[in-house]
Amino acid sequence: MPECLVFRIPTRHPADVSGLVELIDSGKVKADEIVAVFGKTEGNGCVNDFSRPLAVMALETLLAARLGCTPHEIGTRVALVMSGGTEGGLSPHFLVVARRETDEGSVHKGPGSLAVGTAFTAPFRPEEIGRMAQVRATASAVRQAMEVAGITDPADVHFAQVKCPLLISERIADAEARGQTVVTHDTYASMGFSRGASALGIGLALGELTEDQLSDAVICRQSELFSGRASTSAGIELMRNEVIVLGNAPSWHGPLRIAHRVMRDGIDLDAIRGALGDLGLSAAGQLAPSQAERVVALLAKAEPSGNGLIRGRRHIMNDDSDINATRHARALVGGVAAAAIGRTDLFVSGGAEHQGPDGGGPVAIIADMRA
Amino acid sequence: MPECLVFRIPTRHPADVSGLVELIDSGKVKADEIVAVFGKTEGNGCVNDFSRPLAVMALETLLAARLGCTPHEIGTRVALVMSGGTEGGLSPHFLVVARRETDEGSVHKGPGSLAVGTAFTAPFRPEEIGRMAQVRATASAVRQAMEVAGITDPADVHFAQVKCPLLISERIADAEARGQTVVTHDTYASMGFSRGASALGIGLALGELTEDQLSDAVICRQSELFSGRASTSAGIELMRNEVIVLGNAPSWHGPLRIAHRVMRDGIDLDAIRGALGDLGLSAAGQLAPSQAERVVALLAKAEPSGNGLIRGRRHIMNDDSDINATRHARALVGGVAAAAIGRTDLFVSGGAEHQGPDGGGPVAIIADMRA
Amino acid sequence: MPECLVFRIPTRHPADVSGLVELIDSGKVKADEIVAVFGKTEGNGCVNDFSRPLAVMALETLLAARLGCTPHEIGTRVALVMSGGTEGGLSPHFLVVARRETDEGSVHKGPGSLAVGTAFTAPFRPEEIGRMAQVRATASAVRQAMEVAGITDPADVHFAQVKCPLLISERIADAEARGQTVVTHDTYASMGFSRGASALGIGLALGELTEDQLSDAVICRQSELFSGRASTSAGIELMRNEVIVLGNAPSWHGPLRIAHRVMRDGIDLDAIRGALGDLGLSAAGQLAPSQAERVVALLAKAEPSGNGLIRGRRHIMNDDSDINATRHARALVGGVAAAAIGRTDLFVSGGAEHQGPDGGGPVAIIADMRA
Amino acid sequence: MPECLVFRIPTRHPADVSGLVELIDSGKVKADEIVAVFGKTEGNGCVNDFSRPLAVMALETLLAARLGCTPHEIGTRVALVMSGGTEGGLSPHFLVVARRETDEGSVHKGPGSLAVGTAFTAPFRPEEIGRMAQVRATASAVRQAMEVAGITDPADVHFAQVKCPLLISERIADAEARGQTVVTHDTYASMGFSRGASALGIGLALGELTEDQLSDAVICRQSELFSGRASTSAGIELMRNEVIVLGNAPSWHGPLRIAHRVMRDGIDLDAIRGALGDLGLSAAGQLAPSQAERVVALLAKAEPSGNGLIRGRRHIMNDDSDINATRHARALVGGVAAAAIGRTDLFVSGGAEHQGPDGGGPVAIIADMRA
Repeated sequence: MPECLVFRIPTRHPADVSGLVELIDSGKVKADEIVAVFGKTEGNGCVNDFSRPLAVMALETLLAARLGCTPHEIGTRVALVMSGGTEGGLSPHFLVVARRETDEGSVHKGPGSLAVGTAFTAPFRPEEIGRMAQVRATASAVRQAMEVAGITDPADVHFAQVKCPLLISERIADAEARGQTVVTHDTYASMGFSRGASALGIGLALGELTEDQLSDAVICRQSELFSGRASTSAGIELMRNEVIVLGNAPSWHGPLRIAHRVMRDGIDLDAIRGALGDLGLSAAGQLAPSQAERVVALLAKAEPSGNGLIRGRRHIMNDDSDINATRHARALVGGVAAAAIGRTDLFVSGGAEHQGPDGGGPVAIIADMRA
Repeated sequence: MPECLVFRIPTRHPADVSGLVELIDSGKVKADEIVAVFGKTEGNGCVNDFSRPLAVMALETLLAARLGCTPHEIGTRVALVMSGGTEGGLSPHFLVVARRETDEGSVHKGPGSLAVGTAFTAPFRPEEIGRMAQVRATASAVRQAMEVAGITDPADVHFAQVKCPLLISERIADAEARGQTVVTHDTYASMGFSRGASALGIGLALGELTEDQLSDAVICRQSELFSGRASTSAGIELMRNEVIVLGNAPSWHGPLRIAHRVMRDGIDLDAIRGALGDLGLSAAGQLAPSQAERVVALLAKAEPSGNGLIRGRRHIMNDDSDINATRHARALVGGVAAAAIGRTDLFVSGGAEHQGPDGGGPVAIIADMRA
Repeated sequence: MPECLVFRIPTRHPADVSGLVELIDSGKVKADEIVAVFGKTEGNGCVNDFSRPLAVMALETLLAARLGCTPHEIGTRVALVMSGGTEGGLSPHFLVVARRETDEGSVHKGPGSLAVGTAFTAPFRPEEIGRMAQVRATASAVRQAMEVAGITDPADVHFAQVKCPLLISERIADAEARGQTVVTHDTYASMGFSRGASALGIGLALGELTEDQLSDAVICRQSELFSGRASTSAGIELMRNEVIVLGNAPSWHGPLRIAHRVMRDGIDLDAIRGALGDLGLSAAGQLAPSQAERVVALLAKAEPSGNGLIRGRRHIMNDDSDINATRHARALVGGVAAAAIGRTDLFVSGGAEHQGPDGGGPVAIIADMRA
Repeated sequence: MPECLVFRIPTRHPADVSGLVELIDSGKVKADEIVAVFGKTEGNGCVNDFSRPLAVMALETLLAARLGCTPHEIGTRVALVMSGGTEGGLSPHFLVVARRETDEGSVHKGPGSLAVGTAFTAPFRPEEIGRMAQVRATASAVRQAMEVAGITDPADVHFAQVKCPLLISERIADAEARGQTVVTHDTYASMGFSRGASALGIGLALGELTEDQLSDAVICRQSELFSGRASTSAGIELMRNEVIVLGNAPSWHGPLRIAHRVMRDGIDLDAIRGALGDLGLSAAGQLAPSQAERVVALLAKAEPSGNGLIRGRRHIMNDDSDINATRHARALVGGVAAAAIGRTDLFVSGGAEHQGPDGGGPVAIIADMRA
């Protein structure tokens, strides 16, 4: 029976895989057990963020060497989800997610253990990005990933991560040369459309949304349509969607468990405290160091509210032409999450279109349930 | 007997004084009662932050019209402390501090009420900035401000704000034309030296430091020398130091009181909770809305740690050439403070050289003690 | 008979009006002769550029004091066109344009002397920005300004500058609260729509475009529709369009003359050399210092090409999320113009939607014709 | 007898080696003939520029596959000099420099053909960066590279490129843990010290400077000490200096030749025109397209002047806290060079400490001498 392992590894720079080398060499994880790597890398998280492809190239090179395949093949076996942007105090790190088959364990009573499944869509054409073609392909991949994870009830899914592509000048030109239109000519804006379509696809697969609510016209326009468990992140380095589903499943083994809440805005400390409470981690104020150690990972989405306000007070994220709005939002949510947990190596990702309510977003926490 | 009033006014842009106009017109404060205005404005908080002089010009124009003097004279009567930078979710606003003479009140028993005093140094020459000349002149101005506030015991001072100048290319050239050296040729770095020297001057006046510990050589170099109640902020628009001292004094009247703590790092939620607790504001997690309303102002300093770490985890503030380190730090501390208070109109100011320990800084909270 | 005077004044910061004070005090220009001030200020030239309102406030305060009116009234008498962004080597400065009535002169034979006229539209509602309402109101104001300048033949107009508003979160919310839509929710993008609509209005007035070519749908979409003499610049500080028309008119007196060319791309040195040649300023390579002194002003527009290429080679302006595309474009054109002229105090303004061909823009030069 | 080949290859992103693949596959160059690759990549050119290591990793992977060695070994055989920053209109590209042994040719009469030599220093310790240890090691490597190039007279060297390391928080901590001091704690400033020390090393080797003029104290402080042929560029991805010397040598064969000039400031168009003239490329204004095609490469250095002026007019490069000064300088010089050449794929590199006079820098041009 399977066990889902999660390792948190600090990095000294985006191409620093020395921690993963050490982890594999120590025998704690085998290269062929790794199903996904989440990376927080220190670029701008926007169009020209080269920290993401740099990390991907380094991880692919390492894993290819260990698995005896080409770097390119790694991309078909392991979901590498790099999220750029460690604004504020966020600390660059990798989260290595592995699936181990073991016969030691016994089926958990109750809510089950952490389970993981991955799946990929086919590559998108530029004109499909940010439109229903991307929504539907994503929904299909999420269902496939749930099957891999052995999760049948969508309610047992607590987090669905998608890495998705964006438009750049060349891709736009390519589509237009073929007589196609693209969703936007603004390359930065295209990241939002791609994230938004992917999130709606997750919501569709998890039963939070129905197909008749969705159309090209609602994507990034009707913010009241959202998934409370979606996290999507756009990167220049890929043209397909990569899906990782995390949930609890009774058929899985091990000490890890996941819980989630929806943050209603960027300063919703109580949502984080709620998810912590579900995992037996309660504290007045910040977690004690011993509690913080039990938190294996926090995954959250950050987004500026469209109306320019947080609880009625003006923020300047959307009117700042020096720092992109998603960078401000990650810094804010990173500060709020670090206040709760007492640690900064948290996976806070920007751009939460259709991922939670406008200005808010999902937060999931994976904890080791052993006291 | 005096009462110190504090009004928090949102702004729609740096020159937006409409809220202050309304406040004066409503009769809640008289123009000649205003002794200081703290402003969080939405520039970059660095060398070329024009949101600060814009706010100053707008405030001077308004107050001059109301007081029947020239805008220039306002500068000699009212301390206008503009701090640029509302990164993350911070909300631009003014804090208007007024002193009212009243005979209604009676002397408080116990710790006294909020008291304020202001003072100014003479203008500095460029070569004095960031050096002992600035330290000593600041200490002298702090003592003068305490006298104005009727505070005799330095322990009753909970916050000392200084607005100080910086070097720009022309000021450096001016000094060098006169055969003088300046502390640095890096204009951005000069902001740190000016803030650092000013903070040491506060520490000297408050008895936290002694003169024999101080010299040009320690400024911005020996971070273990600091004041736990200093907040200093550099701006291009002035050449002198402007000092505002806030404390509790038994000779003052009114419902407001101030408390402070030293944050040991940027995520020290418990320091904020400690200061809140001193003011009778305790909560598991975020303050309830009714409690948050009692918080009139939070004033905090933010700074990246010099060793590149927060509790052993790497931050990238010092290695980011796109966003200045102080901008990251303000965003982080703003997030932590908003997590505690549940509101974003907080006066978090960047650059905490010699203001609290390396990577940390003071936090002061003013609350209305009426339940 | 009128003479148009143009003075170029360096500034030490956006609020530095000391040069203008000196100019007026010297008697070289009278305050009531000033019809317009063009300012290159050192902000980001984007949404949150506070260097522009700061310069406007300083200029209004000065001119109001000299003319014995309120600062607000200055806005109705003098066109203050602040263009933010001095990237690369561009040098911040003001161009003061004055109209003097004199009887000394005699009508020029030939092409006439520099002539100026200004006009203003009524304030726009947020929903009108970037749409035909703005196009038509601008065209009408250009015709009015030509009348003021005594120019009857549109071919005698060599430069038409418009300062126009932009959308910010609050203005969008205002429109939507009244049930209206706005042209875009992206505040930065709104600057382009406003500039584009204004440029089309100029083209309409100058006969370069016809009304049946124009509609809401073509604005910022059909780049082949453009004016070769339009320069439009968006700022947060106004809600109407301010128009300044510059041309040569036989009924005007004085040594100044203006010429223009359309730069076909950002490195079109020969367009600049063409305009210089029209004014008798030819050189192999850079102008000699004595020639450069005769150049009173260079006014140019800069824009990234939409296809991401300059003469077939990729530029990265549109894919850079750290520095806005218009900032790159201003730096480039500023370098090309400085190469030609040998000086950096040039009025290069960003965002050339419908102002010249895609990736190019108009360049106008005012020279003193006395050898 | 040897021939030096130079190929200019556009890139679509920093890791795009498809053009080099095509070049090798076409047989125009053999992988083992390549001695150096200069890359202009589209990062910020500052501390956290990940476009450089990304390009290096992609080039090493490709060349290792072609040469049958490890990527790491490529670093010891080929000098990969990535210079980040394509501000303004600069176009990302690689310059592939190869050495071919051929017996077809005959010794040139006259000034000889383009010759190249490379050499590497040993890795530096952090405390050596920006100090005399780096100066001396660089001088020694330059002499070694000249020997490889068969150049005996230093006057025949027209360009010496050095890629050098920088300090980051961790390297500083490493030095200090060993009781050593570093030249600066400001990681961005460390790039300047490393470039400056490397440039002085080049000047020492080329006889432009003597050892008794040099000491730790003059580095980045006495700007009148400089090399007129040095180009140095700092990157996070290496700890040694990599040297490439380019000159003309009678013992080399082929149609390429190199010339250089020193730009006295950032707008010194005539310096570029001088170097072009040396290579038989004269034009009034911009080069004609047929002439531009003969320009194989332009390599220049850009730097803001320390006094904040260009020919007496203020620039804002040093006072801009949003965009680093070197980014402004590259954009400016790129514009001036593109004005001359009529093309934007130019290797303009930032940070010219001790490389030409303050605010200026060397410019070298490689041309095909066949009409």
